[in-house]
Amino acid sequence: METKQPKPGKLLAGINSPSDLKKLEPAQLQDVCDELRQYIIDMVSVNGGHFGASLGVVELTTALHYVYDTPKDLLVWDVGHQAYGHKILTGRRDQFHTNRVYGGLSGFPKRSESEYDTFGVGHSSTSISAALGMAVARDLDNSDKKVVAVIGDGAMTAGLAFEAMNNAGAMNSDILVILNDNNMSIDPNVGALKEYLADITTSKTFNKMRDEVYDMLGHFKSAGEKMRKVASRLENAMTAALTPGSLFRALGFKYYGPTDGHDVNGLRDMLEDLKEVKGPKLLHIVTVKGKGFAPAEREQTKWHASSSPFDKITGKSLVAASPVKKKSAPKYQDVFGDALVELAEKDERIVSMTPAMPSGSSLLPMMEAFPDRAFDVGIAEQHAVTFAAGLATEAKKAFCAIYSSFLQRGYDQLVHDVAIQNLPVVFCIDRAGLVGADGPTHHGCYDTAFMRAIPNMVISSPLNEQDLRDMMYTASKYEDAAWAIRYPRGKSTGMQVREGFESMEIGKGIELRKGEEIAVLSFGPIGKYAIEAAELLAAQGIEIGHYDMRFAKPLDTELIDEVCRNYDHIITLEDGSRLGGFGSAVAEYISEKADRPTLKIMGIPDRIVEHGTQEELHDEIGIGVKGVIESVKEKITQKV
Amino acid sequence: METKQPKPGKLLAGINSPSDLKKLEPAQLQDVCDELRQYIIDMVSVNGGHFGASLGVVELTTALHYVYDTPKDLLVWDVGHQAYGHKILTGRRDQFHTNRVYGGLSGFPKRSESEYDTFGVGHSSTSISAALGMAVARDLDNSDKKVVAVIGDGAMTAGLAFEAMNNAGAMNSDILVILNDNNMSIDPNVGALKEYLADITTSKTFNKMRDEVYDMLGHFKSAGEKMRKVASRLENAMTAALTPGSLFRALGFKYYGPTDGHDVNGLRDMLEDLKEVKGPKLLHIVTVKGKGFAPAEREQTKWHASSSPFDKITGKSLVAASPVKKKSAPKYQDVFGDALVELAEKDERIVSMTPAMPSGSSLLPMMEAFPDRAFDVGIAEQHAVTFAAGLATEAKKAFCAIYSSFLQRGYDQLVHDVAIQNLPVVFCIDRAGLVGADGPTHHGCYDTAFMRAIPNMVISSPLNEQDLRDMMYTASKYEDAAWAIRYPRGKSTGMQVREGFESMEIGKGIELRKGEEIAVLSFGPIGKYAIEAAELLAAQGIEIGHYDMRFAKPLDTELIDEVCRNYDHIITLEDGSRLGGFGSAVAEYISEKADRPTLKIMGIPDRIVEHGTQEELHDEIGIGVKGVIESVKEKITQKV
Repeated sequence: METKQPKPGKLLAGINSPSDLKKLEPAQLQDVCDELRQYIIDMVSVNGGHFGASLGVVELTTALHYVYDTPKDLLVWDVGHQAYGHKILTGRRDQFHTNRVYGGLSGFPKRSESEYDTFGVGHSSTSISAALGMAVARDLDNSDKKVVAVIGDGAMTAGLAFEAMNNAGAMNSDILVILNDNNMSIDPNVGALKEYLADITTSKTFNKMRDEVYDMLGHFKSAGEKMRKVASRLENAMTAALTPGSLFRALGFKYYGPTDGHDVNGLRDMLEDLKEVKGPKLLHIVTVKGKGFAPAEREQTKWHASSSPFDKITGKSLVAASPVKKKSAPKYQDVFGDALVELAEKDERIVSMTPAMPSGSSLLPMMEAFPDRAFDVGIAEQHAVTFAAGLATEAKKAFCAIYSSFLQRGYDQLVHDVAIQNLPVVFCIDRAGLVGADGPTHHGCYDTAFMRAIPNMVISSPLNEQDLRDMMYTASKYEDAAWAIRYPRGKSTGMQVREGFESMEIGKGIELRKGEEIAVLSFGPIGKYAIEAAELLAAQGIEIGHYDMRFAKPLDTELIDEVCRNYDHIITLEDGSRLGGFGSAVAEYISEKADRPTLKIMGIPDRIVEHGTQEELHDEIGIGVKGVIESVKEKITQKV
Repeated sequence: METKQPKPGKLLAGINSPSDLKKLEPAQLQDVCDELRQYIIDMVSVNGGHFGASLGVVELTTALHYVYDTPKDLLVWDVGHQAYGHKILTGRRDQFHTNRVYGGLSGFPKRSESEYDTFGVGHSSTSISAALGMAVARDLDNSDKKVVAVIGDGAMTAGLAFEAMNNAGAMNSDILVILNDNNMSIDPNVGALKEYLADITTSKTFNKMRDEVYDMLGHFKSAGEKMRKVASRLENAMTAALTPGSLFRALGFKYYGPTDGHDVNGLRDMLEDLKEVKGPKLLHIVTVKGKGFAPAEREQTKWHASSSPFDKITGKSLVAASPVKKKSAPKYQDVFGDALVELAEKDERIVSMTPAMPSGSSLLPMMEAFPDRAFDVGIAEQHAVTFAAGLATEAKKAFCAIYSSFLQRGYDQLVHDVAIQNLPVVFCIDRAGLVGADGPTHHGCYDTAFMRAIPNMVISSPLNEQDLRDMMYTASKYEDAAWAIRYPRGKSTGMQVREGFESMEIGKGIELRKGEEIAVLSFGPIGKYAIEAAELLAAQGIEIGHYDMRFAKPLDTELIDEVCRNYDHIITLEDGSRLGGFGSAVAEYISEKADRPTLKIMGIPDRIVEHGTQEELHDEIGIGVKGVIESVKEKITQKV
């Protein structure tokens, strides 16, 4: 992907590290912010990327690097898609146009990229735990460095953040948590905490009442000695009770705010003051996601990120509309979303939930069609899974829509609440396999492996959108175990899909192509590469077999037996970890046989795969069309 | 194991289901409680079992079943080791002496055991999520059943509970959460929330202040029309601000309490009233863990559970002390705990943390020796892992002590915060493999499989206590990746351990015994069965090879190559899932070879294994000495 480097404003052009920023006068900071905001807009409008979050924290980012002595002082960004400004101010301005591009900068903070990136992120709600670890290390080293975590109000709803607050509050460690409250995660934030924060930040009544109470206390103080004493004692208690933030104070944090997160010098003052306050403290700032770019301020979910060029003022897409409207292949997530509504229309047991990804998982159609049967539970993956299990105990058919890498957060719940009780929850696992530009934190590499060890689970993956629909349908009727359906980010095949649904035989694969000597067993949409490779090889006179296995569990051992009888070599292909996944299941099965083909397992290798497009990454790790052809030819060579 | 059935008191003898309980007068309930408490003491003092938690909730259990229409109304017990009274009152009194015994009742609620057990538990903090799922299902079904979750103050600190509270508060679903506050989890509860609860329950100042405020308001009301109006408005606000429980109200719950959890009729009244209150509500009750058994009230951690008979009054053990003091083999957890202190003495980078298991993981010696370098972070597995990662970024060597099944809760953190960043955290994974009486929720079946797919991890398991020490030492010096050491619950071998530590070659196994035709490759302490089997077979003239592989990752491929050259059949042996684990690693590796031995993978089968002693379970699933011998003989038969 070719990218263009925008031209920075005058002040920004001179900032190659935070020490350059520190040379400026406070009065110049707003100008820096304006230039930084413009630079981000210029960059993302041409090259794409996350957007709203970084625009919202331009002032905070500038104030933090102005006040703190980074990288000695440690800034921990939660989630990290708001760290564009941070990257630009910390020496990465001129590489920034390579953001999220293969070989370029990561879209998130990353330790190997810069000493200013203290903790790699991507998933939410890790910052307070990590910062507490750093603060404890600092204390053991008798160092005076400061530790600051910046976390959004959405990320604050996740259990991990609460666990860390509970621990930090009790340890009384010197740490600053900045709660960046924009009332959003990627979709609008949900949950009781959000309403609590809204109360704090919007309640005029609250402030008026506080004034009245103090008036009253004043009145009492003038009403005789005994009453004066009572009033004095009360005043302290009332100050605590009537200042917002009691939730955080209950967790042992001093609370400051709410304050305007777009007033850079106000923030600077506040941060300077807070440097002198010891112990765990929380600064609550209020910001607008997408601040400074009108279309993004208006439609925050839509402008969370952009993948294609747009007009910097109007936000209109600059990708020329095709003259003839061609229906392009739907995304797998949309195939899921639409099929779910169709199924729910006919089966009123069906309910669904997503941990804060109603748009990303395409649960919105279901939420619109059946608002009382579809739930955004917030950034709460653990809860999403156990909540689904609870519904299943009452005979509801729960479809839990969740990204592969986020299901990692619900792993214990999958084992403990679903599998051990053998509750027939259906998991629709989106973003399974390499996801592309979001990179290693979001790659869905491990799900097949981590689920396969768990009893009472069916693990399936469709070759195409029609199979996805049929799998969902079959799963909706299945009561004997939990069922996971994994599918990747991005577009489906674009095939003509028949109406309605057909039942699928559980644990059965299908023969796509008969061949000789070498058979490819593929699992999931990545089978498309094997289809293409088989055709290319056939054109060269090499006829391989190809089997779409559909199920990693239960494995179609009958079909594998047949393959073992008819072929000398097996190649398995999956968009998941080589270790412990589908290929491993085949290896386990055939390893007891005395006479059997050799097996080559193709999948994601045992190392961290970085970001890039899915195709770039599949090629890099050798599981694309070319990789399949090479593996086949290797076997042929071996034989000769 | 032989167990004895205690004799119930007169009232209890007549209660075979909650409907029998309901026939009694309120005035009789305390007598039921006394008999129930005695029955539990009688049973546990003879047969062992969890203890303190159930004694603490005798009154609550009785009141709940008296007031609610179970099993139509749904009671969800969190963790579940407090559910003994619940089991006894719901038709399982006469089987109760088989509690935690192979083939007997589970020590936890279990759906397959009784319709009164609405949700299976074992791990903490699932109850609110599950109850919310049930409440939503109830609403969709237009049913009027009540849903009640009972959760301890320790369990409330886990992120999952917070996620569920946040969601339930916003959904405004009709649900009652009973917070059973005994200031304990298994070890004393820690964290800011605990201190918050202590403030509520102990502060006389608080109550006095509240009275004074209301006095003041009364004074104002009599002071003229304008002041009266202000005072009235204030009164509502003040009631909210000055009633304890603001934390829970911030999460959208109505708060009631704190109230005495040992006053059965007080609880009965309160629950009757709460049945009429709609929406999410929390009742905060205060109880004493071990209530009614003096030794348990005094030493709550010690009396969390008992595994051997004791005197019902004094608590003294009834197991006769052996006349000659024989030093028995230390538990693996103690070998870990002692070795950690030895290592920490020499290496000041070493720090350690446990999620609420200082005694269970034997972290207490380290916490005593180095209080500022060892941390109980509360029931917060996710946080424990990310906190360790944070410490590692600052060059601390973090030893994260965690049970295998609890690490399931930290899986995403293991991937996202440790492995992707390649931080050299050491995981000391206790309770790996089948744990015995705690059963399926606590069996550590999956760790090898779920970790093996993750890059940047060493996965090892010692054959014995000396190897555990050397592994810990070697891991403490290792900076290239994270390192997991898995070891089982219970005693080590009792071998003579040399002083000090020796470095171990990473990824190298050792030959324990040379043989012919058949080689056993074992992983971990379960290798003891192979040692014994090999000796027994040798006595029969069958010489098998035995290799202690030590590492599931990196795999000793050189040694496996050698084994492949010299043997016709390989048997792998591990105390972990057959799917995706160590055996699977061997299968993956050898599957590419054209000419190789057959492989039989012995491990935990692909089904839920229930409770019993470890030996009973190993025999049941065929991975004990007998199982190994049978597998060997099978291969011989095949050959003949």
